[in-house]
Amino acid sequence: MREIHVIGIGAGDPEQLTLQAVRALRGTDVFFLLDKGEEKSDLTRLRLDILGAHLPEGSYRVVEARDPERDRRAGGTAYSPAVGDWRSARAGIYERMIVEELGDDETGAFLVWGDPALYDSTIGILDEVLARGAVSFAYDVVPGVSSVSALVARHRTGLNRVARPVQITTGRRLAEGFPEGVDDVVVMLDAHQSFRHYADEDIDIYWGAYIGTPDEILVSGPLAEAGPEIERVRAQARERKGWIMDTYLLRRNPGER
Amino acid sequence: MREIHVIGIGAGDPEQLTLQAVRALRGTDVFFLLDKGEEKSDLTRLRLDILGAHLPEGSYRVVEARDPERDRRAGGTAYSPAVGDWRSARAGIYERMIVEELGDDETGAFLVWGDPALYDSTIGILDEVLARGAVSFAYDVVPGVSSVSALVARHRTGLNRVARPVQITTGRRLAEGFPEGVDDVVVMLDAHQSFRHYADEDIDIYWGAYIGTPDEILVSGPLAEAGPEIERVRAQARERKGWIMDTYLLRRNPGER
Ligand SMILES: C[S@@+](CC[C@H](N)C(=O)[O-])C[C@H]1O[C@@H](n2cnc3c(N)ncnc32)[C@H](O)[C@@H]1O
Ligand SMILES: C[S@@+](CC[C@H](N)C(=O)[O-])C[C@H]1O[C@@H](n2cnc3c(N)ncnc32)[C@H](O)[C@@H]1O
Repeated sequence: MREIHVIGIGAGDPEQLTLQAVRALRGTDVFFLLDKGEEKSDLTRLRLDILGAHLPEGSYRVVEARDPERDRRAGGTAYSPAVGDWRSARAGIYERMIVEELGDDETGAFLVWGDPALYDSTIGILDEVLARGAVSFAYDVVPGVSSVSALVARHRTGLNRVARPVQITTGRRLAEGFPEGVDDVVVMLDAHQSFRHYADEDIDIYWGAYIGTPDEILVSGPLAEAGPEIERVRAQARERKGWIMDTYLLRRNPGER
Repeated sequence: MREIHVIGIGAGDPEQLTLQAVRALRGTDVFFLLDKGEEKSDLTRLRLDILGAHLPEGSYRVVEARDPERDRRAGGTAYSPAVGDWRSARAGIYERMIVEELGDDETGAFLVWGDPALYDSTIGILDEVLARGAVSFAYDVVPGVSSVSALVARHRTGLNRVARPVQITTGRRLAEGFPEGVDDVVVMLDAHQSFRHYADEDIDIYWGAYIGTPDEILVSGPLAEAGPEIERVRAQARERKGWIMDTYLLRRNPGER
């Protein structure tokens, strides 16, 4: 029976790997790496560095595939979809990689950024591959330190205030309105600095980019002051590196409730 | 200058320690353990086992203190507060432990269950100790795998659905009403199985107790069916062990929106 590990590798700091993740890496024959576009070189390199640091050379194989989204722009290669929506396109790619590259009694792994439970499609796609029925395998999930946990650790603050809730959402949703019923909101996947919509409210922001990497940038403070600074350093950093990943916690103060 | 690490140790499985946490343990002279009541023997033992597994014997000291809450019931000992609310009582205890047990050039650590960012008071108390001004130290936070990440990993599901938010809240809050604006809700600190209030809605539950430990129990399914089963196994487990820690994800189905 084929086995697959979905391994959370932390969100930037290779030391955020858990002992369980290291054990799973060591039990893996084939690593499947998906190329996700602009951040490719840096993030793929970090994954390969992790493998190099924990595994003897020559003890594993690496299979790389193109993300279908990217592939549509870049022209086809092996494991690229002809048609169909993105998720089933990906399921098709995963299915073919597993069938063609993973032996019947071998173990494969997907290295997932941060925690596989947050805004990541790997689990859903593997379920879809299983549902198609063309290949069978057992899989497990190794949780990881998310960029959310890494963010607040670096700012030495909590996610929630005592006995209160916290919501994790996307930049797009935040732009539609401040979430109801919560004053602590973590925002991911925000390409448009949606915190700008709330600059006149009594909110503190805890922002971080490239958290856990040598490029890490942290800014925090009242949104009215920190917001413009974040926009400035974010634009500079994005210019310099060509891509950015950032996350932030908005903490609305009691007076606003 | 005194230094203190606040170290997330994962929520039950000692292999969920990160490499960064192991490094921080190895750099620590004095571990401060707070006794938190009923689960004491098991959870304190797990912490001591972690130290034993990663550190040479005799290379560190352990200082134990009573939780003030517990202490009020049990009668005073060293590091117990005379008066005041729980948090400042704790700040007083921490302050005295740091002053009396941590040398000027030594490093101390608090081992925090799961991720220090979720429903844990250690960071807030250290900030209060610093604000009092009687002792100074530098501190950092090592993020950990939370029971939330561990729960959904074991159920092989995500926290959020594609592009949608997730809220993390308490049993008490859930009992007051299903959170607005979200269909995916993680519930912690629930002594009253507050999911019962929603048994007639189209909701799936992913529940886990003692996650990551040899006693782990997982139940999932539509709330109408899984709910009563959870109440049954939870009561049995609690009876057997004398205490329980459980967490769950409620996933409301689109039709309900
Ligand atoms: C597709 S999601 C994946 C999240 C990942 N599974 C996790 O647990 O962190 C990508 C988003 O995560 C956040 N992110 C991931 N790594 C980050 C880092 N090192 N610094 C800041 N934000 C990060 C950003 O908000 C980014 O848009
Ligand atoms: C005071 S909070 C601390 C949470 C911790 N900081 C974390 O990140 O998991 C305690 C709550 O966490 C949850 N919890 C912690 N460990 C757990 C485990 N191993 N299994 C199930 N629930 C757990 C339960 O909901 C419990 O009531």
